[in-house]
Amino acid sequence: MSWTITEELIPALARGAAVLGTGGGGDPYIGALLAGQALQQYGNVEVVTLDEVPDDAVVVTVAMMGAPTVMVEKLPGLDEVVTPVKELSEHYGKPVTHIALAEVGGVNSTIPIAAAAALGLPLIDGDGMGRAFPELQMILPTLYGVEASPLAYADEKGNVGVIRAISNHWVERIARVAAVEMGCSIMISGFHMSGRTAGESLVKDSLSMCLRVGREISNAREQKIDPVEKTVTVLGGRLLFEGKVTDVERATTTGFARGRASIDGAAGTMTLQFQNEHLVAQIDGDTVATTPDLIMVLDHENGEPITTEGLRYGQRVRVIAAPADERWHAPEAIEMVGPRYFGYDLEPHRFDGSVRPGQVIA
Amino acid sequence: MSWTITEELIPALARGAAVLGTGGGGDPYIGALLAGQALQQYGNVEVVTLDEVPDDAVVVTVAMMGAPTVMVEKLPGLDEVVTPVKELSEHYGKPVTHIALAEVGGVNSTIPIAAAAALGLPLIDGDGMGRAFPELQMILPTLYGVEASPLAYADEKGNVGVIRAISNHWVERIARVAAVEMGCSIMISGFHMSGRTAGESLVKDSLSMCLRVGREISNAREQKIDPVEKTVTVLGGRLLFEGKVTDVERATTTGFARGRASIDGAAGTMTLQFQNEHLVAQIDGDTVATTPDLIMVLDHENGEPITTEGLRYGQRVRVIAAPADERWHAPEAIEMVGPRYFGYDLEPHRFDGSVRPGQVIA
Repeated sequence: MSWTITEELIPALARGAAVLGTGGGGDPYIGALLAGQALQQYGNVEVVTLDEVPDDAVVVTVAMMGAPTVMVEKLPGLDEVVTPVKELSEHYGKPVTHIALAEVGGVNSTIPIAAAAALGLPLIDGDGMGRAFPELQMILPTLYGVEASPLAYADEKGNVGVIRAISNHWVERIARVAAVEMGCSIMISGFHMSGRTAGESLVKDSLSMCLRVGREISNAREQKIDPVEKTVTVLGGRLLFEGKVTDVERATTTGFARGRASIDGAAGTMTLQFQNEHLVAQIDGDTVATTPDLIMVLDHENGEPITTEGLRYGQRVRVIAAPADERWHAPEAIEMVGPRYFGYDLEPHRFDGSVRPGQVIA
Repeated sequence: MSWTITEELIPALARGAAVLGTGGGGDPYIGALLAGQALQQYGNVEVVTLDEVPDDAVVVTVAMMGAPTVMVEKLPGLDEVVTPVKELSEHYGKPVTHIALAEVGGVNSTIPIAAAAALGLPLIDGDGMGRAFPELQMILPTLYGVEASPLAYADEKGNVGVIRAISNHWVERIARVAAVEMGCSIMISGFHMSGRTAGESLVKDSLSMCLRVGREISNAREQKIDPVEKTVTVLGGRLLFEGKVTDVERATTTGFARGRASIDGAAGTMTLQFQNEHLVAQIDGDTVATTPDLIMVLDHENGEPITTEGLRYGQRVRVIAAPADERWHAPEAIEMVGPRYFGYDLEPHRFDGSVRPGQVIA
């Protein structure tokens, strides 16, 4: 059933998006600012479920591409957000009818809200990943043969481009170097698809899930319930580890924020490896979670999601995991987003549902 | 008066283009191969003088962008050459009527011949520089307000893109990183202009000049006349130096072939600094020629032009200079292509016509 995004919902949405962003997706409050501004200026956004999208709808994704570490200092404007969508409408000679989220993490949950508001278009309650991933082609529609091309991009200076490449991976490569050159963050729109294909390929209800996670964290705090345990339950996940951040290495290279963090706790030392998003979690060398499953770091007490760029020495955190959309575990999906793609010589670890949510393993 | 490019003219054109390429523009014989192939397949190309281009003609430039050192190993195909022009025709909704040379150097003199043949369009006897320069915005039309945008590009794999940027320098920046990512050479088309603007902004008769230089070198050899002196006379230039190449440093970085060469001779040691093209010539530290004037290295005996990537230890060479189109010496032009732009802390050296052609200075 369709629902409406009002300004009051933005903080909870942004918080939930930061959880599902698995450490990536940038500072959720920047995206929230932009979405809030767009709602004030253009009014509320109608959200439609995937079932409600007509088969012949013209759907495109809207997202920020670049290193989230840079976006903290470079707030995008609404012009920059809507320009790529307008480019695609012109390119096809027929208007885009629905905006979809490419990923459900961080700013890329809230920027499409801003785009939908400014364009006066409905937003789809769903996304292409059910989480966040660092590269553009890492989206379930790729597995359904949806082309990222033509991909339109824009920066805050007024530079605009369109890429039509031979594969979604080539779109990623060309757009990525453009993003780096243009100041490490650009707005993009692409993955043009019919409503029917959107219905098949996107992850259902993920915007609702963001809102639910964000609200449950607030409610738990008010009710003096443990917000981390609550989040684990909502996501059908489990607690992996708790401890104190003792080390963070981070570098912004080739448009990504790459690094690793160490967390010391009673159960040993957890090492987290990330490339925008958390990709591998190990305890004393034993792998306990990997991409494509979701690895999230939350503040120990208040359950606030901590992005990879927000990790600091001395933070008390809990690390939780949740299962990815089942389609991410297909062999061709693992090839695209499994640990080996990111350079870790590891088999993908399969989320173990037999462990009770909240139970500390190892 | 219009004339026709037949396959027999290609070798002389390519040789002359290599001279005017001032060390850059890539291996002229690769461009010649491509042009020859296109003429065989599609027939001869009509060349029209700038005076003959109708005011309302739709003119675009065609060129290769990238490091010429790479092109030696990656021969472009005709599809790659014509795709960007077709993209622009579609973009404007009206067909391109004339092809122009962005620069007169190396492959960028012969690739537009291939494009004109394959597209069945007339080629303009003129170019945007009267020489070769390493960056896309370094073209006289920029000084006349002609926008490089939209710039279309294509690679040999089938990747295509269009850039619309806020300045020609931004087009250069975004296209350059795309070129590097796509394998260090792409075909581009842009600088869409009317026939009238082409007439005002392009350098006249430069394709004829290529042909003349190339022919004079062959004729001189046949007639046992010094081909280097002949070239100097045709270009209204002068001999700067003669000697033996003793050192060449070269690196392909950020899409350019950068480096320096040392030449030992009776008059001292000449140092040449280049970035795709020769930009500064000094004898024992005294500057004797700089960009925007033309600095060219020719084989001592047979007058064959030597590109920066063709420079080798032990070669006996003569270095000659010739004046650039006068418009390149305007202050705003010097800002764009003067020595300081390239990082050399030097005033632009003005070509000294008082020195008799062929006279060795210093």
